[in-house]
Amino acid sequence: MDLKAAKTLLLRQRIEVPSWGFANSGTRFGTFAQDGAARTLEEKLDDAATVHRLTGITPTVALHIPWDGSPDSDWDGVARYAAERGVAIGSINPNVFQDQCYKFGSFGNPDASVRQRAVQAHLDCCAIAEATGSDTISLWYADGTNYPGQDDFRARKHRFEACLAEVYAALPAGARMLLEYKFFEPAFYHTDLPDWGTSLLMCSKLGERAQVLVDTGHHPQGCNIEHIVATLLDEKRLGGFHFNARKYADDDLTVGSIDPYETFLIFTELVKAGLDPDEELRTATGRVAYMFDQSHNLKHKIEATLQSALFVQQTYAKALLVDYKALRVAQDSCDLLQAEEILRAAFNADVRALCAEVRSELGAEADPIAAYRASGLKEQAARERVARHGEAVVGSGYQ
Amino acid sequence: MDLKAAKTLLLRQRIEVPSWGFANSGTRFGTFAQDGAARTLEEKLDDAATVHRLTGITPTVALHIPWDGSPDSDWDGVARYAAERGVAIGSINPNVFQDQCYKFGSFGNPDASVRQRAVQAHLDCCAIAEATGSDTISLWYADGTNYPGQDDFRARKHRFEACLAEVYAALPAGARMLLEYKFFEPAFYHTDLPDWGTSLLMCSKLGERAQVLVDTGHHPQGCNIEHIVATLLDEKRLGGFHFNARKYADDDLTVGSIDPYETFLIFTELVKAGLDPDEELRTATGRVAYMFDQSHNLKHKIEATLQSALFVQQTYAKALLVDYKALRVAQDSCDLLQAEEILRAAFNADVRALCAEVRSELGAEADPIAAYRASGLKEQAARERVARHGEAVVGSGYQ
Amino acid sequence: MDLKAAKTLLLRQRIEVPSWGFANSGTRFGTFAQDGAARTLEEKLDDAATVHRLTGITPTVALHIPWDGSPDSDWDGVARYAAERGVAIGSINPNVFQDQCYKFGSFGNPDASVRQRAVQAHLDCCAIAEATGSDTISLWYADGTNYPGQDDFRARKHRFEACLAEVYAALPAGARMLLEYKFFEPAFYHTDLPDWGTSLLMCSKLGERAQVLVDTGHHPQGCNIEHIVATLLDEKRLGGFHFNARKYADDDLTVGSIDPYETFLIFTELVKAGLDPDEELRTATGRVAYMFDQSHNLKHKIEATLQSALFVQQTYAKALLVDYKALRVAQDSCDLLQAEEILRAAFNADVRALCAEVRSELGAEADPIAAYRASGLKEQAARERVARHGEAVVGSGYQ
Amino acid sequence: MDLKAAKTLLLRQRIEVPSWGFANSGTRFGTFAQDGAARTLEEKLDDAATVHRLTGITPTVALHIPWDGSPDSDWDGVARYAAERGVAIGSINPNVFQDQCYKFGSFGNPDASVRQRAVQAHLDCCAIAEATGSDTISLWYADGTNYPGQDDFRARKHRFEACLAEVYAALPAGARMLLEYKFFEPAFYHTDLPDWGTSLLMCSKLGERAQVLVDTGHHPQGCNIEHIVATLLDEKRLGGFHFNARKYADDDLTVGSIDPYETFLIFTELVKAGLDPDEELRTATGRVAYMFDQSHNLKHKIEATLQSALFVQQTYAKALLVDYKALRVAQDSCDLLQAEEILRAAFNADVRALCAEVRSELGAEADPIAAYRASGLKEQAARERVARHGEAVVGSGYQ
Repeated sequence: MDLKAAKTLLLRQRIEVPSWGFANSGTRFGTFAQDGAARTLEEKLDDAATVHRLTGITPTVALHIPWDGSPDSDWDGVARYAAERGVAIGSINPNVFQDQCYKFGSFGNPDASVRQRAVQAHLDCCAIAEATGSDTISLWYADGTNYPGQDDFRARKHRFEACLAEVYAALPAGARMLLEYKFFEPAFYHTDLPDWGTSLLMCSKLGERAQVLVDTGHHPQGCNIEHIVATLLDEKRLGGFHFNARKYADDDLTVGSIDPYETFLIFTELVKAGLDPDEELRTATGRVAYMFDQSHNLKHKIEATLQSALFVQQTYAKALLVDYKALRVAQDSCDLLQAEEILRAAFNADVRALCAEVRSELGAEADPIAAYRASGLKEQAARERVARHGEAVVGSGYQ
Repeated sequence: MDLKAAKTLLLRQRIEVPSWGFANSGTRFGTFAQDGAARTLEEKLDDAATVHRLTGITPTVALHIPWDGSPDSDWDGVARYAAERGVAIGSINPNVFQDQCYKFGSFGNPDASVRQRAVQAHLDCCAIAEATGSDTISLWYADGTNYPGQDDFRARKHRFEACLAEVYAALPAGARMLLEYKFFEPAFYHTDLPDWGTSLLMCSKLGERAQVLVDTGHHPQGCNIEHIVATLLDEKRLGGFHFNARKYADDDLTVGSIDPYETFLIFTELVKAGLDPDEELRTATGRVAYMFDQSHNLKHKIEATLQSALFVQQTYAKALLVDYKALRVAQDSCDLLQAEEILRAAFNADVRALCAEVRSELGAEADPIAAYRASGLKEQAARERVARHGEAVVGSGYQ
Repeated sequence: MDLKAAKTLLLRQRIEVPSWGFANSGTRFGTFAQDGAARTLEEKLDDAATVHRLTGITPTVALHIPWDGSPDSDWDGVARYAAERGVAIGSINPNVFQDQCYKFGSFGNPDASVRQRAVQAHLDCCAIAEATGSDTISLWYADGTNYPGQDDFRARKHRFEACLAEVYAALPAGARMLLEYKFFEPAFYHTDLPDWGTSLLMCSKLGERAQVLVDTGHHPQGCNIEHIVATLLDEKRLGGFHFNARKYADDDLTVGSIDPYETFLIFTELVKAGLDPDEELRTATGRVAYMFDQSHNLKHKIEATLQSALFVQQTYAKALLVDYKALRVAQDSCDLLQAEEILRAAFNADVRALCAEVRSELGAEADPIAAYRASGLKEQAARERVARHGEAVVGSGYQ
Repeated sequence: MDLKAAKTLLLRQRIEVPSWGFANSGTRFGTFAQDGAARTLEEKLDDAATVHRLTGITPTVALHIPWDGSPDSDWDGVARYAAERGVAIGSINPNVFQDQCYKFGSFGNPDASVRQRAVQAHLDCCAIAEATGSDTISLWYADGTNYPGQDDFRARKHRFEACLAEVYAALPAGARMLLEYKFFEPAFYHTDLPDWGTSLLMCSKLGERAQVLVDTGHHPQGCNIEHIVATLLDEKRLGGFHFNARKYADDDLTVGSIDPYETFLIFTELVKAGLDPDEELRTATGRVAYMFDQSHNLKHKIEATLQSALFVQQTYAKALLVDYKALRVAQDSCDLLQAEEILRAAFNADVRALCAEVRSELGAEADPIAAYRASGLKEQAARERVARHGEAVVGSGYQ
């Protein structure tokens, strides 16, 4: 691919930011509050708009319900508020893990009334999606057990299948559901949807509009995530990504901070599939949703999101620069050293100027972090928000 | 379940031993030869017969081709030899990883002629199965890559799908294929069939006679294997087990040596499924093949196999003693501590006398290891085999 | 060891319970409140006293400061309150991770004023230890960094060495400090004290009254904890344990729930060292502190503590039943199968009756969990505590 | 650091290559022989000389005894042969794991006569070091156990301490010993020297000329190796490195192939320590030995070594370009995002031209791999070596 073609694709790159990435977050040991962290949906949308204005590539915002509102909220108003600031509502994420009723799970719960309540929370999100113009329901379940014997694996599987089918049947026209998996946490002995295999199995039973979501932090150590990505692409069932990074568990660090080469390898699979002769595969690849799901516990929320967007942009640029034809020739002749060097040549390329150029063409900033730091916006938000809400009150998993 | 019912089931328990479990084995750093280790198929069958005579529960022997012979071997004679010693031929395992042609894989190899050679090796195994009265082809692939870029994940997946379909079409009437997966090793960057999800995906495309084989050592750290077992049972696609143990990687230690509670939890899933109201599930559960796949590098081969058989027998006995009705009551009321204690009560029960009784009724030994040690067979085999073959010649991965 | 000798040792077994094990706890995703969970130090001491009355082996309670009070609390009164209920104050644990000032660490913090504040918190704990009759300060640090480059490893090490030296110099006469380590969490990129090697290095520089504390959940996957225990015993630097269990990360589950054989193997090291001809080693072994450090997120707090005490009692009983002389003979002749079977014989023994007998002789309950469930105490505490404090208010890591 | 200063340091960079990196190697499943792989010490030295001629930075060759000779070899002749080809003998590595006598360990073996044989093998290596002008004995032990109970941890520790002390006492004047550790493999239950803590403990007891060797593949998953490097540097006990890469276990892949950022972070610690105001630290850092320890199972041996040398050169160059003063300012003000971006700026820099320039100044090749591929040397070596020795005979861990 020549630089011009790469630039054309870079100009089209879009990444969704999560509303919760602008709010305070922490660990079970405690939360360190930031004065300027967003505490209302409007503030989160303000922050997302700032990021989009500076980078040019983050036009949508994922919502978490009920953190960001209830069925009774003025969703038209929310959509309008977002639009006025230059962003739009992205995927809708039902939270069915925090209420006390979900102590023993949501869709996996032995209690049918809790399952029904969880299903209703999903139906509410479908309605919110319609009201806000979103076409994606993004699903993650904290369900699982903490101890051997706590519940029956197969019974829980049956309950999950039944509840997901109810939600699938209620999807708005044109909408799809993304089904996330996670190896462990917060359930510590077993997780109902622990791996891509389980998510794909569920999606296959549901229908084509159910697709697998890959969160890069939700795998066991040593797992080859780019291989999973390739498999799901080949099955036309890769729905999207939650990008983040981790060193040990699901640490939800900013994407690329621990192993940037892994993210690059993931992107090479996506670029390759987007260039494939199989049109159906190209279409499926074009549909993949790119989102962050990170806990900016110590970094400033907006800065961390800027940094993440810049990293993903650079990584996509590097993946676009790979000479895939030469790669395939090397692969077919089992010249593994040459094949590896072709990948490395692209990874080692310095794409920072190229990306700055792309951002400039998009009307955004050549150096977004520096621009933000120079703007005074950070200090202003902190002042205004503390004035509006008072100091942030934070807790820990220990009460 | 009362003791009598448990005993009835224990009397029917059967576990397959691998021919290669009686041969010398080692690590890439070297192999420590045992004088008495089997070096011919006949010696392996002799050793397997000894184990079956002492335990009463290991009547079949898995073969590895070409380690145990070629298409031209006298397979009628082999079957007869086995039968005369009281055992029979079990699953047939094609080895498509050791020949120099498989350097870059078998079914995943970019070279079509190598793939065809690998397919032929499978067809040969189908013929051997027919000739020896075996109804199971058990498949494991070392295929994968060592470095990023070495080969294309999706291209390899397509090759695997095509080759497996050829083999499936050639399965003898009444036979089935078991498809194993492995998280890593000997491929170090990616493995073509790395997890149960990939194996199940392949099996689903092939047909009902393709089922997943779970090797207990082939998972990432922290993986909940009993959950995978439950999922595959629920899908009626659990074909069988390769039992062994590991602390870190696929260490192929004797089953139960590192985490006996995990094996117990796996067996509780099998017992529960065998008692399920769903007849199809009970049938599928009854079909599960139980096999060892261990590298007895330091332990004496026969003693290690005896020890393994005794452990699996005791573990099955403990799993049979669980009060599953009370367990379900505790589970349905979310009394997780009580549910756990019900499992532990069975795990803590001392079933050694019960198992000795079962072995006695089967005409085997109450204390098989002691009986073997007292028999002089060990010293005799060592003398005879060294006399027959000379000292064992062993190597390492470094030449 | 004969049964009588084993019983004598079982009658002397003592385990410390943590005050925080009776309070509500959760994960970063949320906390599920229990009505009867303790919310004041007095309630925690009440619960600990209940556990001791039922089991007979948990006479001391570890405190967390400031969760359980401040330097200004009436510590004489606390000690008296405990004594009246039949328990005593155990180790004092300074919490230097939750206050907002510790966002970037305590002893590792680049800011000297924060380090001084953390040192003062330790000096306060020394005073509390003296006031309550405790002779142990137990230290764990959440310190570390989340991202590469965040801080300088060696600079932080120097700060830790300096601060720990200040605390060591201030230890009350006759008191010791236990220095815990943890592989990861809540710091996600690096932890200042990540492994036993770092803790031992620090303790060696401090002096003999600084000893290493092993928390069983604070190791990487695949780690051989019993080997670490043996090494620290051999160096006469094993100070104590925090028992708990985990499947993947530091899940703080109840001890023995995931891998009971591992706990047994740890106890065999302790029993062996207690029988060693080296008197210094026997003395050092006798000094080891046994404590729980668990998050009873879903289990009832008191029941989970009872279950843990019973498990540790049974495991110690099994370890006492090992024939260590025969084991050494098997080891010296490299008969590894026999050596393993000697361990397994003890692990497979059913010691429940023996332990019930021990509890009865101690004036406690033969079946403590059943007795507690039958007592009505659980319901009574829930009623009284809700009446006293209102419903529990719980949060999550996300605000 | 300006480019000129960086270049000066790059011109001084030296990395040792292992003789065994040019020989055939494999896994327990088999070895895929390469026609041109070296089979004699002379051939290994020829290959090492080729690598040094092409890169300019690999002037020494590590030897493995007895793979590369015995006490009776003509070591003067070997040193002369090497010198004539422009290289020299580097560290001497005793192999005490492959002989049948080491089945149950070397220094940890219960049998005193085996331990004495292992000590003698070390004394032989000391003599070889003197004869070849080497000043480094590099020690790795496969010792450990495969099963719980197999041997006594503390007894083995005592044996190790005693044997190492014998070797230390016999070190040639001016020589040092490097003591490696490994988390697991080939011992599968416990390893006698499993972590840096154990190696450091041993070295501390021995004396200043005993230092820890870090093999980058010998750690648990999720381990922060750069932190260990910093700790050992701070203790002035980092003796050297064995570079390689891994995805899961100790896969001995070419360095940088899986996680190049990790290698970069390790080098930043080394560069920082080399610039430290503490002269003793700078001296200790200057003493660190850089070596490869890789199994080039599938890659061509010489090409893989060239690739590794180039990677380490580029990584050192990137680490030299970090603005450490600005980094420290960011760290001291807890500006973690800025600190991270300072590291990333250097990592993202394209240093390929700089490194080519350095190689040219050293009289080596601007593009060593291309030059080698164009030279015809590969084909020539294959022809000559097959003519000399015949086809390579290879085996597997299964016999």
